[in-house]
Amino acid sequence: MGMIGGGPGAFIGEVHRMAANLDGIIELVCGSFSSKMEKSLQTGEALFLPKDRIYATYQEMIEKENQLPKGERMDFVSIVTPNHLHFEPAKLALENGFHVILDKPMTLSLEEAEILKKLVNDNNLQLCLTHTYTGYPMIKEAKHMVNSGELGEVKKVYVEYPQGWLSTPEENNGNKQAEWRSDPAKSGIAGSMGDVGTHAANLIEYISGLKITKVCADINTIVPNRALDDDGAALLKLNNGASGVLFVSQVATGEENCLKIRLYGDKAGIEWKHDDANSLIVKKNEEPTKILRTGGPGTSSIVAHNQRIPAGHPEGFIEAFANLYRNFALTVDAQINGQQPKEEWLDFTNVEDGVRGMLFLEKVIASGKSEQKWISL
Amino acid sequence: MGMIGGGPGAFIGEVHRMAANLDGIIELVCGSFSSKMEKSLQTGEALFLPKDRIYATYQEMIEKENQLPKGERMDFVSIVTPNHLHFEPAKLALENGFHVILDKPMTLSLEEAEILKKLVNDNNLQLCLTHTYTGYPMIKEAKHMVNSGELGEVKKVYVEYPQGWLSTPEENNGNKQAEWRSDPAKSGIAGSMGDVGTHAANLIEYISGLKITKVCADINTIVPNRALDDDGAALLKLNNGASGVLFVSQVATGEENCLKIRLYGDKAGIEWKHDDANSLIVKKNEEPTKILRTGGPGTSSIVAHNQRIPAGHPEGFIEAFANLYRNFALTVDAQINGQQPKEEWLDFTNVEDGVRGMLFLEKVIASGKSEQKWISL
Amino acid sequence: MGMIGGGPGAFIGEVHRMAANLDGIIELVCGSFSSKMEKSLQTGEALFLPKDRIYATYQEMIEKENQLPKGERMDFVSIVTPNHLHFEPAKLALENGFHVILDKPMTLSLEEAEILKKLVNDNNLQLCLTHTYTGYPMIKEAKHMVNSGELGEVKKVYVEYPQGWLSTPEENNGNKQAEWRSDPAKSGIAGSMGDVGTHAANLIEYISGLKITKVCADINTIVPNRALDDDGAALLKLNNGASGVLFVSQVATGEENCLKIRLYGDKAGIEWKHDDANSLIVKKNEEPTKILRTGGPGTSSIVAHNQRIPAGHPEGFIEAFANLYRNFALTVDAQINGQQPKEEWLDFTNVEDGVRGMLFLEKVIASGKSEQKWISL
Amino acid sequence: MGMIGGGPGAFIGEVHRMAANLDGIIELVCGSFSSKMEKSLQTGEALFLPKDRIYATYQEMIEKENQLPKGERMDFVSIVTPNHLHFEPAKLALENGFHVILDKPMTLSLEEAEILKKLVNDNNLQLCLTHTYTGYPMIKEAKHMVNSGELGEVKKVYVEYPQGWLSTPEENNGNKQAEWRSDPAKSGIAGSMGDVGTHAANLIEYISGLKITKVCADINTIVPNRALDDDGAALLKLNNGASGVLFVSQVATGEENCLKIRLYGDKAGIEWKHDDANSLIVKKNEEPTKILRTGGPGTSSIVAHNQRIPAGHPEGFIEAFANLYRNFALTVDAQINGQQPKEEWLDFTNVEDGVRGMLFLEKVIASGKSEQKWISL
Repeated sequence: MGMIGGGPGAFIGEVHRMAANLDGIIELVCGSFSSKMEKSLQTGEALFLPKDRIYATYQEMIEKENQLPKGERMDFVSIVTPNHLHFEPAKLALENGFHVILDKPMTLSLEEAEILKKLVNDNNLQLCLTHTYTGYPMIKEAKHMVNSGELGEVKKVYVEYPQGWLSTPEENNGNKQAEWRSDPAKSGIAGSMGDVGTHAANLIEYISGLKITKVCADINTIVPNRALDDDGAALLKLNNGASGVLFVSQVATGEENCLKIRLYGDKAGIEWKHDDANSLIVKKNEEPTKILRTGGPGTSSIVAHNQRIPAGHPEGFIEAFANLYRNFALTVDAQINGQQPKEEWLDFTNVEDGVRGMLFLEKVIASGKSEQKWISL
Repeated sequence: MGMIGGGPGAFIGEVHRMAANLDGIIELVCGSFSSKMEKSLQTGEALFLPKDRIYATYQEMIEKENQLPKGERMDFVSIVTPNHLHFEPAKLALENGFHVILDKPMTLSLEEAEILKKLVNDNNLQLCLTHTYTGYPMIKEAKHMVNSGELGEVKKVYVEYPQGWLSTPEENNGNKQAEWRSDPAKSGIAGSMGDVGTHAANLIEYISGLKITKVCADINTIVPNRALDDDGAALLKLNNGASGVLFVSQVATGEENCLKIRLYGDKAGIEWKHDDANSLIVKKNEEPTKILRTGGPGTSSIVAHNQRIPAGHPEGFIEAFANLYRNFALTVDAQINGQQPKEEWLDFTNVEDGVRGMLFLEKVIASGKSEQKWISL
Repeated sequence: MGMIGGGPGAFIGEVHRMAANLDGIIELVCGSFSSKMEKSLQTGEALFLPKDRIYATYQEMIEKENQLPKGERMDFVSIVTPNHLHFEPAKLALENGFHVILDKPMTLSLEEAEILKKLVNDNNLQLCLTHTYTGYPMIKEAKHMVNSGELGEVKKVYVEYPQGWLSTPEENNGNKQAEWRSDPAKSGIAGSMGDVGTHAANLIEYISGLKITKVCADINTIVPNRALDDDGAALLKLNNGASGVLFVSQVATGEENCLKIRLYGDKAGIEWKHDDANSLIVKKNEEPTKILRTGGPGTSSIVAHNQRIPAGHPEGFIEAFANLYRNFALTVDAQINGQQPKEEWLDFTNVEDGVRGMLFLEKVIASGKSEQKWISL
Repeated sequence: MGMIGGGPGAFIGEVHRMAANLDGIIELVCGSFSSKMEKSLQTGEALFLPKDRIYATYQEMIEKENQLPKGERMDFVSIVTPNHLHFEPAKLALENGFHVILDKPMTLSLEEAEILKKLVNDNNLQLCLTHTYTGYPMIKEAKHMVNSGELGEVKKVYVEYPQGWLSTPEENNGNKQAEWRSDPAKSGIAGSMGDVGTHAANLIEYISGLKITKVCADINTIVPNRALDDDGAALLKLNNGASGVLFVSQVATGEENCLKIRLYGDKAGIEWKHDDANSLIVKKNEEPTKILRTGGPGTSSIVAHNQRIPAGHPEGFIEAFANLYRNFALTVDAQINGQQPKEEWLDFTNVEDGVRGMLFLEKVIASGKSEQKWISL
C-alpha cells in the first residue's frame, strides 16, 4: 500500500494506517504524505519507510511505483487528503492501474464521480470508499436481516447524525479540521451534508438495499458567516415507496458523533447507534425486544467474518475501518492472483456508493435552495 | 368534578380518574359515562356515585348540576370522549359556567377551537387540555432551563414520537382504540398527526416558548385502506428563526411510546425521552454531559412543585397526568374562592394550546397534500 | 381505612395515602396522625376527615372505631410510623380484629415479629408488610418466570441497594428522616441493613421462592459517630444450595435508590433495576438478550393484573405501592364478605415476610460482629 | 518482539499481535508459536516471518536470539501461553536479558511470582502483565481522579465480573478455551478467580492505589464435576480501612464480559463498566451525575495519551490492549537507548501487579476453604 496525504497533524491519515496495520496483512511501502517534502519525509521516516519510497508528489509516486516490478510496487493507493484532493490523485492512480482506497465524499462533483466510476469499470479495478460505519459488524448484520426478509418490506427509515463541534466558529480558531470542512474550495458544495450527511444517506442504502429517489431538504447555516451548511434535514422517498427522514447537524451543541439509524418493516424494526456499536436492537409488535451483540447468539456468519475478538469485548471505530481495509485488500489480492474474491470480501462500499453519494449531495443541496417540495435523484 | 365519557372499556377515562384521585384534592361527584344509561350506571356505581348524579346524557348533567347550589354542584367537568365528542360538551359546559378539562386534540377543526377559546375568555373560565407530557417534572425543568437562558438562543429542535401498534390493521380486528382513531368521523382530519403529532408539536412550543411558523410535511398512510394517516414527518421553522424536525409514526413496528425531544441552543443542548422520564440530559461542548433527575441536585423549585416522592423513586405517566389535574384544580379552586392562583398552578396546557394544536394539525395535513415546500401557520 | 402516623412532614405517610387513593377503592375514614392532637387535626382536616374521626392516640382510635357498627368502622389500619412505633399499634389493632398494613422492618425484634405472626394467624387476619418493590409488575413477572421454570434451577443471586444520602452526617443537620433512621431507640439494631437491606433480602426470597439459610456479613459504620450501620454486605447461602451476594450502602456517594437484582439459573438469567422499573432483562447463552416490558409482548397475566396503563406509559413507585394496597384491600374485602380471595389478590408481602425480615436482620447484624464465617438463619 | 505461544486456534495470541501491530511501532521478528514445529511454521509464515526465526521451542528461540547482534535480535518477548507455561519461559527470557510481556495470572504460584519479581529487579528489566482493563483510557482517568483527590477518601469499592459461558460443561464439548481453564494442571489453583477474579482485584488496586489486606471468600464450583471454581465472591478490606465487595462468575447464564467497578469516596463516586468502556460516570450528592467520555471535555492528559481517535469514535478492547503494548514498548525502547521513560509510559501493570495477583489468588482460594472469617494478605 502507498499513501497520499496523512502528514503531520492529519487525523484521518493516522486512522487509515492503524486500520491497515491491524490485521498484519497490509504493508505500507511508500507514501507522499504532504505537499511539503520535508513533512513527507518526517512522516515517512517515522513509519520506517526507506527514503527512496517517500515521494515529493503523488504524481511522482504513481509514476515511480509504476516502474517498479510487480510484486515490489505498491498494490493499491490509499488517498486520505481533504475532499478537493481526492479526484486528481484517484484518477491518476486508476489510469496507471492502481486500485484505490479513498475517503468520502468521493469527489467535489457528480461529474468527477462518474469519471472515476468509468475508470474503475474500464480498467477492472477496485475502489473502496471508506464509509466507515458500513464496516461495523452489527451494521452488516442489519443489512443481512433486511436481505433475508426478517423485517418484511421496509416502510420507514430514520437516520440521524448530530454533532456539536461546529456550534462555535471553530474555523476561525485555528482548528485545521474545521477550516477545510467549512471552505467550499476544499470541501465542495456542502459542509455538514458532505461530511456526515453522505454517511447517513449511504447507510440507508447500504442496509436497506433500496435507493433514495426523492429528497425535500431544509439546509441551514447556523453559525453566522460560515460559508457552508452546518445543519440540515431531509424528507426522503425510497424506490420501493417507503419514506424516510434524514437529519444531520454540526451545531447540535454537546453531541459527539452519535450516528443512529432505524428501519421499520411490516414484520420488525431495527435500531443501531454509534455509541453502542456492538448492539443491534430488534423490535417486533408480538415479541420482546431483542439485543443482538457482535458475536453473540443469533448473529449470522457475516458478523463472524467482521469481528476479531469474542462477544463481550468491545470493538470500535478502528476495527470497523479495518474491516473495509481487510475486505478491500483481500479482494485486491485475489484479483492480483487471478482468483475470484469471496462474496464476503466484496462487501465494502465502492465507486458506485461514491457516485450515489455525490448524486445525493447535489440534489439535497439543490433541494435546500428550491421552493419546490420534492427533488428527484 | 363531573365526568363525560369514560365508560366501560375506555382507557383514557380510567387514567383521568386515577390522576384526579391521586392527591386526594379532587372528588368525582357526578358523571355521564356512556351514551347508554345502563353502562353509565354501571360505571358510576362502581365509582360509588349516588344514582341521582349519574346522568343519561351530558346535556342533562350540565343542566341538572347547574341547578344545584354552589358548593354542591360540580366545579368542573372532565371530558374524556373521542375527538368528535369534544366540542359540543365542552361548549355547553363553558356556556353554563363550568370549567373544563379536555383531551387533545381539542376539537375537530380550528374553527371549533376558536369558538371554545372565545367562550373561555369571555366567561373567564379555565380550560385544561391534557397534553400529558407537559406534566412530567423534567419537561418542566427543560422549559425552565430554556426560559432562564441556560441553552442560549435555541437553534435546533428535534421531536419524535414513534409507535408501532398500528403497523397492522388493528382497526379491523376489534381494537376499539384503533377503530375511532382511524375513523375520520370520530378522529377528524388526521390520524397519527392528531393522536401523537399534536403532542410532539405542543411539546416544542411548551418547552421552547417559541411558535412553529412554517411546516413542510410528508404525510403517509402506510397500512393499505386505512382512512387516515398513520405516519408523518415535518420540517419546521420557528418564530426566532430556528429550525426543527418533527416525526411521528404509528407503524414503527415494535416501538412503544417513546416520545423524545431534543433542543439545542448555542450554549447547551437538552434531551428528554419518555422511557427515561425522570432524567433530563444536558450537553455542552466544554463540559461533561450532565443528567438531571427528578428531585435530584441542580433542579429548580418547579420540579419540587411537580413531584411527590424523593429523588430516585420513579414517577410515571399517572403522576404527570395528575400534575395537570392538580395545577388546574388548584387554579379553579383559587378562582372560585376569589383568590389569585400561584404562578406555578397556572402551568397547565390550556385553550390557547388547543387552538395552536388545531392550527398545526390543519397546516401539517395541508402541507402533506401540497407540492409547495413551506406552508405558513 | 384508618391511619396511624403520617402527620406533617412525614414522607411515607403521604405515599401510603396516594397509593391507597389511586384506584378509588379505598377510603380513608379516620386517623391518628401525630402524637400531638393539634397536628393530627391539621392533617386530618386537610384530608377532609370529620373531626370526630381524628383521634388523639392510636389507642383511642382503635377503641372508638371498634365501637362503631360494622360497615361504618374502618376495615383495616395503616401504620406508617417509625420502626419503634410499629409493634404496639399493630398488636392492639390485631387484638381488636382489625387487619393491618405496616411498613418494614416489621418490628424492633424477632420476638415481637413472632408475636404479631401469632396474632394474625390466631385471629385469621391479614397483615400486609409494604415491601414496595414486590409491587412492581416486572418483579412479579420475575417471580412468575422463576416459578414456571424458565430460569431452570436458580444457582446464583446478586442483590444490591446502594444509596448516597447518608454519606454525610445528615442526622446532625436537622434531617428528620436521617434522625430516626440512625437512632437505635427508634430504628432498632440496624441502620442501613434495616432500612434497605431488608428490602434486598426480601426481594431475593420473594422472586426466587427460596429461603436464605446462612449469612456471612461485613457490617460497617462509615460516617464517624453514627450509632448504627450505614453500609454492609453479606455472602449468602440459599436453601437449594445456591449462593448469593447482597450489598447495601447509604454512603455510596451520589447514588439515588437503585435497588438491582439478578438471578441466574442454569437456563437463563434475569435482571431488574429500580431506575428502569418497567423492564425485565432476560439473558440466555444461546439466545439474544430480551427486554420484557410492563404490559409488553411476552409478559404473563400477573403483569396485566398489576398494571394500570398500556405498555410504554411508565408506571412508578406509587403504582407499585398501590398494587400492595389494592391486593391487600381486595383480600380484606373478600374476607369481610365471606368470599375466597383470588390467588393474585393474595400476592402481597405479609406477616411471614415480616418475620423472615427480622430473622435476617438479627442474623446479619450478629454475623457482622462474629469472627465465625457463616451464621445460620 | 518475539512471541511464545499463539499458534493456530489460540484466541489471545491473535489479540496480542493486533495490539502490537496497531500503532506501527512494534515489529514481530521471531516466534515459537506451538509445541509442534509444523504448527509453529504455519503460524510464523502466515505472519511473514523468515523461516530461520521461527523456532521449535522457546528455549531455542531465547538462545538463538541471544546470539544475534543487538539491534537485530528481538528486544522483548511476548508470552501468550496458558498459565502453566508462563513461568519457565518468562524466567528463561529474563535470565537472558529479555524484557517480557506476559498474560495474567502471572504464574501458578506466589513462589514463582516472587522469583520472576527478583529476576526483573536484579536484572533491571521490564515485565508487563497484560491486565487489559487497565489500558482503557477511562480506567486511567478513574485512577487519575482518585489520585488527584476528586473522590476524597475512598470508603467503599464494588467490583464484579460476571460471565456466563461456562454455565454448561463446555470443557467436555471440545472448547479449547474451557479445557485448559478448568484443568488445575494448566490453570493452577483457581478457575474463575484466576481467569477473571485477578482482573477484578487488580483493577481495585490499580485505580484506588490501595492494597487489599483481608479477604473473606465464598468460592463455588457450580457445574458438577468441574475441577476448579467457576464462581466466587469476596468481602474485602483495604489498607486505608475501606471495605469492598468483589464477585465474579463464569456461570452467570447469558452474561458476556461485563466487568464493572464502582468506587465511592466521601466527595464523589465513580462507575465504569466494560460494555460502555468509553464513559466514566461521576456521582456526587450535591451535583448532577456527570458522564466523562474518552477524549471529551473534562478529561485529563492521561486520557489523551491513551486514545487514538477523537471523542465520540468508540475505542475498544484491542486499543486498550495496545495501550499496554505501547507504553511497555516505549519504556523498553527508552531503556535500550539509555533514556529515562516518561512517567505516562511507565503506566502499565507490571511484575509487582503479578505478585499481588498471585497473593490475592492464594488467599482468596484459602479463604474459600476456611471456617474463619477474615484471611489476611
